[in-house]
Amino acid sequence: MDDVRFAVLGTGGIGRRTLEVSQHKDGLTAVAACDRNGVAVDHGGLDVAELLEATEGNIASGPQGGPEQSSGDEPRDSGPRDDVSTDGGAATAGVKQHGDQAGVVASEQGRPTETPIDAVIAESDAIDAVLIALPNLEHDFIPRVAERFAEADYEGVLVDVLKRSRVIGMLDDREEQLTESGITFVCGAGATPGFLTGAAALAAQSFVEVEEVEIWWGVGLKSGYEDNRGTVREDIAHLDGYDIETAREMSEAEIEELIDDHDGVLEFHDMEHADDVLLERAGICDAEDVHVGGVLDVRSDEKPTTTTVSVTGTTFDGETGTNTFQLDDVTSMEANVNGPALGYLKAGVRNNRAGHYGVFGPADLMPGF
Amino acid sequence: MDDVRFAVLGTGGIGRRTLEVSQHKDGLTAVAACDRNGVAVDHGGLDVAELLEATEGNIASGPQGGPEQSSGDEPRDSGPRDDVSTDGGAATAGVKQHGDQAGVVASEQGRPTETPIDAVIAESDAIDAVLIALPNLEHDFIPRVAERFAEADYEGVLVDVLKRSRVIGMLDDREEQLTESGITFVCGAGATPGFLTGAAALAAQSFVEVEEVEIWWGVGLKSGYEDNRGTVREDIAHLDGYDIETAREMSEAEIEELIDDHDGVLEFHDMEHADDVLLERAGICDAEDVHVGGVLDVRSDEKPTTTTVSVTGTTFDGETGTNTFQLDDVTSMEANVNGPALGYLKAGVRNNRAGHYGVFGPADLMPGF
Repeated sequence: MDDVRFAVLGTGGIGRRTLEVSQHKDGLTAVAACDRNGVAVDHGGLDVAELLEATEGNIASGPQGGPEQSSGDEPRDSGPRDDVSTDGGAATAGVKQHGDQAGVVASEQGRPTETPIDAVIAESDAIDAVLIALPNLEHDFIPRVAERFAEADYEGVLVDVLKRSRVIGMLDDREEQLTESGITFVCGAGATPGFLTGAAALAAQSFVEVEEVEIWWGVGLKSGYEDNRGTVREDIAHLDGYDIETAREMSEAEIEELIDDHDGVLEFHDMEHADDVLLERAGICDAEDVHVGGVLDVRSDEKPTTTTVSVTGTTFDGETGTNTFQLDDVTSMEANVNGPALGYLKAGVRNNRAGHYGVFGPADLMPGF
Repeated sequence: MDDVRFAVLGTGGIGRRTLEVSQHKDGLTAVAACDRNGVAVDHGGLDVAELLEATEGNIASGPQGGPEQSSGDEPRDSGPRDDVSTDGGAATAGVKQHGDQAGVVASEQGRPTETPIDAVIAESDAIDAVLIALPNLEHDFIPRVAERFAEADYEGVLVDVLKRSRVIGMLDDREEQLTESGITFVCGAGATPGFLTGAAALAAQSFVEVEEVEIWWGVGLKSGYEDNRGTVREDIAHLDGYDIETAREMSEAEIEELIDDHDGVLEFHDMEHADDVLLERAGICDAEDVHVGGVLDVRSDEKPTTTTVSVTGTTFDGETGTNTFQLDDVTSMEANVNGPALGYLKAGVRNNRAGHYGVFGPADLMPGF
């Protein structure tokens, strides 16, 4: 494949690390990056090292947000956010933000702008793929960003790492517009959904009928806890008896009390994760047969449980068994987001160049029968 | 994706079961099948049930071969064969062959021919993909079959389940001819290489540098042993102190003695399996860092060891870990060949329709960065 020129919207955790990881690979050239205050563009290739150094501990951010919002852009309000503590999101531990002149504008390659996304769209003729590493402040925020690219007749790839099932439908609602523009939108391309969704699609190939997919993640967040308070709040919304509204209204003290009651370890079951709809749309199994859960330990950096995908199905010769995919506990959620996000980005470019437009999930990009 | 019309060359174990499994899936229509004596073609879709019933225990075969040759075609001699006891091959246990009028001609859809491959080539304008389920009687046999399709200007997909590393180079030597014809050749698309190669490519996405890929398979062959004596002979060629020539020259009694000495359990290390070159060509790791081995138990149908792919690498943040993919012991090698073969076939068709011609391995068809 020829060189892929890509842009990153948002230089928070995921955006920064995607830039960092891309340096390890040939054929991936970062040509644009933006945050809420500024944009950097160089079609010959950004000086990624300089950009990362200038923005290290210096991320442009809105007034209220935790660091998972630090990659933000307009709108500047803090609406409901996706939970980001699982492998599919967050990954912003350790990133700080400070005052004015923060973020991309602190780089010698950056320039200030009130409209950073528009600034990238203006350059998009020479951009093959755009990683949308923005917090999904409202459920339709990323779908609306996609719309703006379509309105500008962008021909290329958009990739996001969103997690909530309901957002996929909002993208599907816009599929005709995306297709007309020539956009290949790869959604849910982080760890879960993303990496683990693809693993489930692969593991399913032993079976003519898949009965259950179980995705079970572990995240240790001790050193990142202070920077991920907002994240943890979002995760609380997945606990029994809580939802996004009740979690948002909790005071810091109430959250601390809840965490104390759980000895720092929160366990989640039947989370709303887009793995379900993404596997169904790829024909792997029914969405209702997909179960996502996991364990978050805010008092240890060790993973409290091993991230595992289990696919149970029946073979053509009538046996019922379970294939499994396990990530080593030492692989951080960051590592398990960045590689897959870039992998799906490149797969998206191959599809886009072949004229395959519309909305694709990770499992749609895997071999499957 | 639109409907895929496919043909099967060879109706031995893999060919038969691919036809069988395709009935479980929408969008896959078998339109042609052949063996050494006959061909059946129906562009509206073969009556697969009738064909399978008519050929059950009645496979056309050459004079000398074990059942792994039963899908054979010209040449009729029995040259060196690929080992077929691992998940990537054989899978012919339980298939018998009998006398004249054997095979496809026993079906009411079949007609006799001296040139079955040519008979399929003659129909190939209306065939999207061809699964080459022939024994690789000589290392260049399948490459030469591909050549014949190219000489006839076939535009479409060829898929095989070959296993030996050196064959990939022979296909690469013909890549220009395949590309000019419009052929997308997907090689090594069984279990290993194939399913497990893809799993390795996926598991590698946590890492910026892959240090080792270990593929370890288990096969229990008690009930299939009688029908796989030729297979076992080929596997013996992988044991220390043996090669293809010495294994071929052993008497049945010598083989029995060897098996007795091992209590029926043969363990293999550093096999020549194309997983190595297929992962290298996809940029996952160096071929020399890929190790394939396994355990064959001819006195039990239980797998003597769990088929496992282990990928060890270093993450962008400097941790070294091992991701693993395991197949349930109850999934037969047949199940682990057929699903992936059809999955890669469909992925091949997507690529072919997009104008991607040449030689592709399983890992080339996976998202990867």
